[in-house]
Amino acid sequence: MIKAGIIGSTGYAGSELVRLLQGHKEAEITWYGSRSYIDKKYSEVYQNMFQIVDDVCMDDNMEALAEQVDVIFTATPQGFCASMLNEKMLEKVKIVDLSADFRIKDVATYEEWYKIEHKSPQFIEEAVYGLCEINREKVKKARLVANPGCYTTCSILTVYPLVKEGIIDPNTIIIDAKSGTSGAGRGAKVDNLFCEVNENMKAYGVATHRHTPEIEEQLGYAAGEEIKINFTPHLVPMNRGILATAYAGLKKDVSYEDVKAAYDKYYAGEKFVRVLDKDIYPQTKWVEGSNYVDINFKIDARTNRIIMMGALDNLVKGAAGQAVQNMNLLFGFEEWEGLDLVPMFP
Amino acid sequence: MIKAGIIGSTGYAGSELVRLLQGHKEAEITWYGSRSYIDKKYSEVYQNMFQIVDDVCMDDNMEALAEQVDVIFTATPQGFCASMLNEKMLEKVKIVDLSADFRIKDVATYEEWYKIEHKSPQFIEEAVYGLCEINREKVKKARLVANPGCYTTCSILTVYPLVKEGIIDPNTIIIDAKSGTSGAGRGAKVDNLFCEVNENMKAYGVATHRHTPEIEEQLGYAAGEEIKINFTPHLVPMNRGILATAYAGLKKDVSYEDVKAAYDKYYAGEKFVRVLDKDIYPQTKWVEGSNYVDINFKIDARTNRIIMMGALDNLVKGAAGQAVQNMNLLFGFEEWEGLDLVPMFP
Amino acid sequence: MIKAGIIGSTGYAGSELVRLLQGHKEAEITWYGSRSYIDKKYSEVYQNMFQIVDDVCMDDNMEALAEQVDVIFTATPQGFCASMLNEKMLEKVKIVDLSADFRIKDVATYEEWYKIEHKSPQFIEEAVYGLCEINREKVKKARLVANPGCYTTCSILTVYPLVKEGIIDPNTIIIDAKSGTSGAGRGAKVDNLFCEVNENMKAYGVATHRHTPEIEEQLGYAAGEEIKINFTPHLVPMNRGILATAYAGLKKDVSYEDVKAAYDKYYAGEKFVRVLDKDIYPQTKWVEGSNYVDINFKIDARTNRIIMMGALDNLVKGAAGQAVQNMNLLFGFEEWEGLDLVPMFP
Amino acid sequence: MIKAGIIGSTGYAGSELVRLLQGHKEAEITWYGSRSYIDKKYSEVYQNMFQIVDDVCMDDNMEALAEQVDVIFTATPQGFCASMLNEKMLEKVKIVDLSADFRIKDVATYEEWYKIEHKSPQFIEEAVYGLCEINREKVKKARLVANPGCYTTCSILTVYPLVKEGIIDPNTIIIDAKSGTSGAGRGAKVDNLFCEVNENMKAYGVATHRHTPEIEEQLGYAAGEEIKINFTPHLVPMNRGILATAYAGLKKDVSYEDVKAAYDKYYAGEKFVRVLDKDIYPQTKWVEGSNYVDINFKIDARTNRIIMMGALDNLVKGAAGQAVQNMNLLFGFEEWEGLDLVPMFP
Repeated sequence: MIKAGIIGSTGYAGSELVRLLQGHKEAEITWYGSRSYIDKKYSEVYQNMFQIVDDVCMDDNMEALAEQVDVIFTATPQGFCASMLNEKMLEKVKIVDLSADFRIKDVATYEEWYKIEHKSPQFIEEAVYGLCEINREKVKKARLVANPGCYTTCSILTVYPLVKEGIIDPNTIIIDAKSGTSGAGRGAKVDNLFCEVNENMKAYGVATHRHTPEIEEQLGYAAGEEIKINFTPHLVPMNRGILATAYAGLKKDVSYEDVKAAYDKYYAGEKFVRVLDKDIYPQTKWVEGSNYVDINFKIDARTNRIIMMGALDNLVKGAAGQAVQNMNLLFGFEEWEGLDLVPMFP
Repeated sequence: MIKAGIIGSTGYAGSELVRLLQGHKEAEITWYGSRSYIDKKYSEVYQNMFQIVDDVCMDDNMEALAEQVDVIFTATPQGFCASMLNEKMLEKVKIVDLSADFRIKDVATYEEWYKIEHKSPQFIEEAVYGLCEINREKVKKARLVANPGCYTTCSILTVYPLVKEGIIDPNTIIIDAKSGTSGAGRGAKVDNLFCEVNENMKAYGVATHRHTPEIEEQLGYAAGEEIKINFTPHLVPMNRGILATAYAGLKKDVSYEDVKAAYDKYYAGEKFVRVLDKDIYPQTKWVEGSNYVDINFKIDARTNRIIMMGALDNLVKGAAGQAVQNMNLLFGFEEWEGLDLVPMFP
Repeated sequence: MIKAGIIGSTGYAGSELVRLLQGHKEAEITWYGSRSYIDKKYSEVYQNMFQIVDDVCMDDNMEALAEQVDVIFTATPQGFCASMLNEKMLEKVKIVDLSADFRIKDVATYEEWYKIEHKSPQFIEEAVYGLCEINREKVKKARLVANPGCYTTCSILTVYPLVKEGIIDPNTIIIDAKSGTSGAGRGAKVDNLFCEVNENMKAYGVATHRHTPEIEEQLGYAAGEEIKINFTPHLVPMNRGILATAYAGLKKDVSYEDVKAAYDKYYAGEKFVRVLDKDIYPQTKWVEGSNYVDINFKIDARTNRIIMMGALDNLVKGAAGQAVQNMNLLFGFEEWEGLDLVPMFP
Repeated sequence: MIKAGIIGSTGYAGSELVRLLQGHKEAEITWYGSRSYIDKKYSEVYQNMFQIVDDVCMDDNMEALAEQVDVIFTATPQGFCASMLNEKMLEKVKIVDLSADFRIKDVATYEEWYKIEHKSPQFIEEAVYGLCEINREKVKKARLVANPGCYTTCSILTVYPLVKEGIIDPNTIIIDAKSGTSGAGRGAKVDNLFCEVNENMKAYGVATHRHTPEIEEQLGYAAGEEIKINFTPHLVPMNRGILATAYAGLKKDVSYEDVKAAYDKYYAGEKFVRVLDKDIYPQTKWVEGSNYVDINFKIDARTNRIIMMGALDNLVKGAAGQAVQNMNLLFGFEEWEGLDLVPMFP
């Protein structure tokens, strides 16, 4: 049984980590960090945990925490993890950072898109981008895992095989993504009030969203070249779920079977990636509460483009679930331990 | 490992049974019965089960099923179970009936409220009303369990201790209940279309809802006399969850502590009933996806009444979860096996 | 054409006043007051008003405003109107106060329930409680109208005729009310975030909600005696709409026709109160966006109680619509001017 | 005062026509046609119309109706209008067809995408495509108006100026559209049940949706050549609203001001098209209940593409509102008569 500490356990992603780790047989949470609720009972912040979690919220002291646990999850705002991290800490404890601090290899790109200075660029090189299905072997040996973003996990897994196999032209990729509102966090903002979001839909961060360079970098590795894409996120009146609809020009004359084979090549053995049957398109509700990503595609011969679709639960595979999956890889547990969750419908 | 069959596995309650039993260590489903989808893959009816359930839907042949399994769940319309049941079947297999057929001891009352003839009244006497927290010992010895209704489970558990302890006058009980729309089932009706339910709220079945006599009978046992109550259900634009707000006149001059002690007397040892801290009122989202019932109360000295509130997930503790809990009692498993579900928030 | 000023025009009730007055032929808004958005274009605060309202937000200076307009609407927090009001102001301008400051005649009751000191109790006596259907003639002659609360308008209109006619025992009244989330205002609070409200339902302010004494006072006038009732509000995941389900013991042996006649006696000539056909129960969606209140009832002979139901749009008849209706009465306009709104469905 | 008849008045688009025409000063409805509810009171089918519409539903006899009214709206399934229409009818009455029967000039294209035979191709040529902002003058002289689809109105208006001005390459256009569920109609289908749509999102009709050729034809006229585009509709858990996010490659090096000028060239004088201020993106809620289309765009210099966004209410500007606007043009009324609706927020 390993010990886990969560910095930022009272945000939505942090609270989902708490939910998932209750069912994990090899890990227990011993530190519920929170900036806003220190000394308050965790179950008073999240009443669903009443009589399940009896602990009291601790502060966000990562230094102290590193002495006491085997793994730290940082579910914190951008910049926090980078500002706290040091070599001594990394020698004592594995770190899974749910923020963007160590996702992007080029520090200038990070600073340009995030508008903050990176406080520990010396660790960027060794950090492993924790998209388990793609970087599994590297994660196993890592000390520091950069847990991917929610939109990025969905977007990359949806198009990765077709970039890798040279079926689509990566510079024609356009990703139109739609997210439930839990992705916006638990901060009290007018824009996220029920009455502002309900019965409403909008695009935001158009041509400027920070997940763009993350997708470009990872798909660029698959393509073997630098690429530029369009990525547009939208806010949808639902709690959970991301649906990514991706478009790209075909480089080859391919059949349904060809493309299906490309997906199967990478995902046939993957428990958490489900390539659906022909003409069945992903729905976010079909993966809600689980660590699955559902994927499918449609070739449009009229325009010589392909439409690819992927759906996941932004708090599970898009955040806390993938973080647990990374922890499992780091410690040699079964990869699906604590993640054997059946999607809840309706 | 016992074998379970589900008649009506493609309704919402049936599909929730399927979800819960995936995580049960002592039972496996070997028969996915369905009237509408015979020979279709179950995962094509509920795509969330893709790559999880590979079985094909069978018919609703309860006779044949009884030969093959240890327990049958009937998640079927009223009248079905009563019309199929016979002594031979009961000698071979345990039955948990999620319909109302065996919940009400007085067959005339059943026929009056349900407007159908009861086809096997000879089994009503032996059927055990499967409200586990109250009838646990009887369930353990039963052959036939009448799984309680969703509204009734919530309503009865919310007021039971105060009736039993003589704190409230049972004939003054008024229960105003609110339910998510999954309680209306998966049938294609205009009234349950998204655009009719969303951004809308209504009462229905006012003074005529069939759960009324079921609540009256069970609370009557607690009161030691026949009682009459008011029960009004409402439809709420959410998928899951029932909130019951119950009002009653106080028979005694009681303090908060007195009432709390009454609740604790019955529920302190109950895993699935959570009496919340003072002035924290139940919210349906705090129990979503789990088998919990959250309960609390407020004394109104001005009117000498007490307001009692209870919340549960209508598909779990209100249907499939309680059915599994009953199965666990029937077969001597740990009562919470397969039900150790942490509520999902948000 | 009269001139209207709104203090608090950037809250939800204030913005609904703006919407309604766009269609009013006899009044125009010349002052869009706002504490938070001074000097900002109104249409930047409410983008639905883009190219419709070109004005800039003014401050909340009620003194200055009184010099410039014929009527002031105060859609402000409790205490504001009472703290600003003076005799000179009332000599110049009619005031429709949407807060609770002048609704309750007994200042001690006000101060007890609202936990604030009343700053101008000298005006309480002359203020007219602006429930138009009941106090129409008094409103016409008023200088200061206390616009009723949303829950109270719905609750009072739903039970008023039966109290007035002595059909029900007023001290047995229990009102279980459900409201959309716009009633909670546009303030940035965690409790009102989309993810906290959506897929959730709860009671709040149990036995302590401030609309209780307001309902008691008004129904007390109808009963001819002081009364005590139970009132429990609930939060529902929808933007607009209040549904009040009221219960009371019958004092007489009455038929459907008797009760219907009582309702018709008071409402047959009322444009905005619709007593529905037998066994058709109110739904909030049927009045959305309009000034209607839909009402119906069901006698429960089993318990000798009656269940009364009422539905309205909390921002229209429950706030801004009734305020405009009051303005129309104050200035001798057609009572439905600007309020001839057809409910929007779906 | 002209007389209007509606065939299909009990669908969602038909009922919205009923709502809008209540407020029209020059037209009154004298025929509420319905296939499913003949002889039933209209207000029993749509209770929001209680005490507003007293009429009884008539049948769908278009021949008889043509004798009695000045204009017929056909809010009917594809094929109905084409199968009923004849020359005599057109000599007596103006027709606004809300179905797709006369939208597409090439009958083969119609039959291929709609999978039905066109029963009166002889009228296709004279039918005017009723996108008022673009074909205003032609509509004024028409006998038969093909009212555009909801997705198509939104899509075309969003990209039209940039195609017309040669700023974008029309064959690179990709339209990712999201619609509320009222677009799916009031038919009782499992897929449109509340619990299936709520908390869910999906693409449908991928590469095969029937609005594709309609968009291609109209934008082709603007481009001066035949074009092929990608169009993907999505279902969103809200009642009303369409958001179209369109992507296209830039043919020229343009600035924000250049593009804004192109939009202004076509829309500056248009009451119902609002090009928003820089960096303010359309939200469906800002146009709900109104006839507005909100539009904006963002140039992405990194990819040399432009992202265009448009939002409308699918039942108003996307169906009934535009139908009324067409009627106004046909009869020489003010174009905004009956359509001066302020969007409702929240």
